[in-house]
Amino acid sequence: MKHKERIEQAIKALQERTFYAPYPENPKAYDAEADAQGKEAFQKAMSNPFVGLNEEGNTGFIGEEVSPYMMVGLGVQYPQFSIDTIMSRAKEAHAEWSKIDVEKRADLLIDMLDAVSKRFFELGYATMHTTGQSFVMSFQASGPHANDRAMESVALGYQELTRYSNEIDWVKPMGKFDLKIKKNFKSISKGVGLVIGCSTFPTWNTVPGVFANLISGNATVIKPHPKSIMPIAIVVAEMQKVLVENGLSPYTVQLAVDTVAKPITKDIAEHKDVKLIDYTGGTAFGDYIESIPGKTVFTEKAGVNSVILESVKDPKAVFGNLAFSFSLYSGQMCTAPQNIFVPADGIKTAEGHLSYDEVVEGLSKAVKGLAENPKMGAFVLGAIQNDNTKSRVNDTIQALNASNLEAEVAHPEFADARLLTPTVLGLDENDEHWKEECFGPIVFVVKSSDPLKHAAEMAEHKGAITCLCYSTDESYMQEVEHTMNAVFTPVSFNFVGAAFVNQHAAFSDFHVSGGNPSGNASFTDALYINRRFVWVGNRYA
Amino acid sequence: MKHKERIEQAIKALQERTFYAPYPENPKAYDAEADAQGKEAFQKAMSNPFVGLNEEGNTGFIGEEVSPYMMVGLGVQYPQFSIDTIMSRAKEAHAEWSKIDVEKRADLLIDMLDAVSKRFFELGYATMHTTGQSFVMSFQASGPHANDRAMESVALGYQELTRYSNEIDWVKPMGKFDLKIKKNFKSISKGVGLVIGCSTFPTWNTVPGVFANLISGNATVIKPHPKSIMPIAIVVAEMQKVLVENGLSPYTVQLAVDTVAKPITKDIAEHKDVKLIDYTGGTAFGDYIESIPGKTVFTEKAGVNSVILESVKDPKAVFGNLAFSFSLYSGQMCTAPQNIFVPADGIKTAEGHLSYDEVVEGLSKAVKGLAENPKMGAFVLGAIQNDNTKSRVNDTIQALNASNLEAEVAHPEFADARLLTPTVLGLDENDEHWKEECFGPIVFVVKSSDPLKHAAEMAEHKGAITCLCYSTDESYMQEVEHTMNAVFTPVSFNFVGAAFVNQHAAFSDFHVSGGNPSGNASFTDALYINRRFVWVGNRYA
Repeated sequence: MKHKERIEQAIKALQERTFYAPYPENPKAYDAEADAQGKEAFQKAMSNPFVGLNEEGNTGFIGEEVSPYMMVGLGVQYPQFSIDTIMSRAKEAHAEWSKIDVEKRADLLIDMLDAVSKRFFELGYATMHTTGQSFVMSFQASGPHANDRAMESVALGYQELTRYSNEIDWVKPMGKFDLKIKKNFKSISKGVGLVIGCSTFPTWNTVPGVFANLISGNATVIKPHPKSIMPIAIVVAEMQKVLVENGLSPYTVQLAVDTVAKPITKDIAEHKDVKLIDYTGGTAFGDYIESIPGKTVFTEKAGVNSVILESVKDPKAVFGNLAFSFSLYSGQMCTAPQNIFVPADGIKTAEGHLSYDEVVEGLSKAVKGLAENPKMGAFVLGAIQNDNTKSRVNDTIQALNASNLEAEVAHPEFADARLLTPTVLGLDENDEHWKEECFGPIVFVVKSSDPLKHAAEMAEHKGAITCLCYSTDESYMQEVEHTMNAVFTPVSFNFVGAAFVNQHAAFSDFHVSGGNPSGNASFTDALYINRRFVWVGNRYA
Repeated sequence: MKHKERIEQAIKALQERTFYAPYPENPKAYDAEADAQGKEAFQKAMSNPFVGLNEEGNTGFIGEEVSPYMMVGLGVQYPQFSIDTIMSRAKEAHAEWSKIDVEKRADLLIDMLDAVSKRFFELGYATMHTTGQSFVMSFQASGPHANDRAMESVALGYQELTRYSNEIDWVKPMGKFDLKIKKNFKSISKGVGLVIGCSTFPTWNTVPGVFANLISGNATVIKPHPKSIMPIAIVVAEMQKVLVENGLSPYTVQLAVDTVAKPITKDIAEHKDVKLIDYTGGTAFGDYIESIPGKTVFTEKAGVNSVILESVKDPKAVFGNLAFSFSLYSGQMCTAPQNIFVPADGIKTAEGHLSYDEVVEGLSKAVKGLAENPKMGAFVLGAIQNDNTKSRVNDTIQALNASNLEAEVAHPEFADARLLTPTVLGLDENDEHWKEECFGPIVFVVKSSDPLKHAAEMAEHKGAITCLCYSTDESYMQEVEHTMNAVFTPVSFNFVGAAFVNQHAAFSDFHVSGGNPSGNASFTDALYINRRFVWVGNRYA
């Protein structure tokens, strides 16, 4: 096995949950020419049919991506296929792929990741101009961080799929004689898996399911969001290249593109030959996906993440850390906090007591300061992926008769960029606005009679992917950990400096617990792999 | 950790899938007095309130078990409780039990299994006179084999629950400095689990879920079949004793008894605080259990198991082996074959060609020979657990205008025993009778144009727990293994002598694959444990 050492290293990291990053996140760790080459490749790709995907048998070319920075269509066109074509190819590819042993599958999948890593910069620009993330975030999220998560799937898959003897002689002493039976144990893949991508993290949220499917022997169809195709198209092109180079069907992994006006997701999801579905996106559609009978489903839906502010050492450091977490990609991360629960009578700090109003003011100022800092502002905020996000946030702001900071920030490179700086709004606990997800750059500072109770209730009923708690009281911290963990929500305590609640590191942090309404699956626990195949044991007398 | 060595040995066996039986199946391996003592204990228990279960707060005593051997009621009465009482006790016990670390939980659970093993003979008699199994089978199935399966849950649970570091210092090099975060990883139990027992295997099918719940930190309520309570009551009594001896709540595991006339299963299953349900029984009720929203469900439902007869070396040995598998416990095992698919033009044997009719005749004769053998007959067949099984089988026989062997067998010890020897019926592939489950001592020898196709279709659409294939053709065997495995059904090949398809050995054979309609779970794969808890990671700056 070619990549045995890398797989073993990854498995070890996964078990110990220590820092491990096979694909470095720092752009400077890569070839000096790579950035310029990647930018050029991206620019060349615009206004052209996408190059590198298998095109045979297509029914046409479509594409309607719009850069949130340039506010122009990218003009990239992707080959479109009928669902019948896609599914019959997937079934045939599954028959071939499922016969390959897990060692070989792991080697091929790692070859694919290595091939993708050669295009990290191009991936970065493609992600930037489809999602609105800043370039560095685009590079990291769609490049190394996504590859790391994919590698995590491969490593855990390899571990789970090799956990039993392949063949044994089973010998049972029967007194006068031994009963001998030869047995083999086979992991049987479920068939064809569909992975439904989202617009904001087109590779990071997609590749874990894709690589988990593939390591388990399943063929995979990827249905990207019609506004964020290019990043995953680059990944699929590299995967298909490795497949073909190895004499295998490129249809082991296929891209099924559609348009906003004519979506095909339901038709594929309900197709009788689709056995597995991975989904990232809104809760309503996720609930529908979970309800389709006879499918094995993995979802990451929406959550409403809380911050519990009980007491702090250094308010400035805390407000700065929170401002960054609110602002990073304009609150469009599934891990970003929405509700900041502050006791009605304020908080203790090392510098004295802060009233609730002073906390709201401190947070607002920190957010404003970050937004107006020319070295941070636009580069932290990125752009708004979807017009709807902008109008929904603005509607909420108007409904609450408040104002935002929008006018005060401009992007130094892209004059037309769709920007919206985060708004910090103080609300009473009796207000209803904080009790639903409000996706985008808006946070509610809730004057709360019981921050922990409110945070736990939101996690239990609306779901939560993260929870951030600031407290200097050991026993309160224990209570928060216990109470939030009981609703299957992880807690981060007293993050300041370079530790941000938004960040979930591959090989160490579980992403989504799978235990509350924010999703039914986790990157990457044993269920994420084991639900994709079935153990069968055969016996020979 | 007291039992660390035993856990490690069990984990090793589970991975290697070699023979391992911590509780010997041979009654002679136990104390010479134990049999007589067990019999006496069972006889003393009859016509009395059951001794050993926590009785506090009961609303009365109920019990309506009938011995299929004596055809008289056992008269054993069990304490009954309101569902409110049971559930509030379970929730409280869960709060306590979930705080105990996994090492201590494993030690306590193994102590419980050791305590149960002291009562294997009493368990044997209780099982015999509730299920109708022969004594030796009762002893083995409810005693050592059940304990082995429970130990399997504990061992795999221990392995899964300790697979990650509890606490680590995560250090990420950031160039100019290191980002350091302390992390802990916690397995959070889901809460209270309900385990619904069946009438034929009251402990074997119940304890795997019970011990899997408990090792994962969940409290458990057992709802036994009202006609098969005593065996699991003995187990629960021993478990509660160990809990109390260790200063823990006896309500960590509770028995919730009911009657056929006033069932309580749905009320408990739908209770908001029941988070997990394990179920063994018929398909219709199993489908209902799977449909209850918001529960983690593990089912073993009905299947229709096939034998594929393609070619054999020694027809006599094959017919003898099959006759035993049909007859063992009168076909009331979920692993027993129902449909024997024979090519329309017969089979090749080492002794020449056998026509389809000759195969039917050979099988009938072998079954008749076994039934009429005074040293085998009644001791292999046991008795029929439920009157309905007997009438359903007789109805089918009458509908097909056939006859059975019933009159020819009597039980040497129990003149009133409810017996029904297996009937072997030849059917054309166009007949509809073999296309549904017909539970009990009846097998259909189907004249088939394509035995493998028929077996695979039944497994895919009706479910199958076993498949037995006889063939001397290597390439056909490979085709059978591939095709049946693809519908998630294990295949046993050419079993003769002491190897029987009905037997699934703990630590080696997966029982039910979970991939076809016979059930959604498997004893004991990683899913069986991991679905009972959720990993949550907390981070401290």
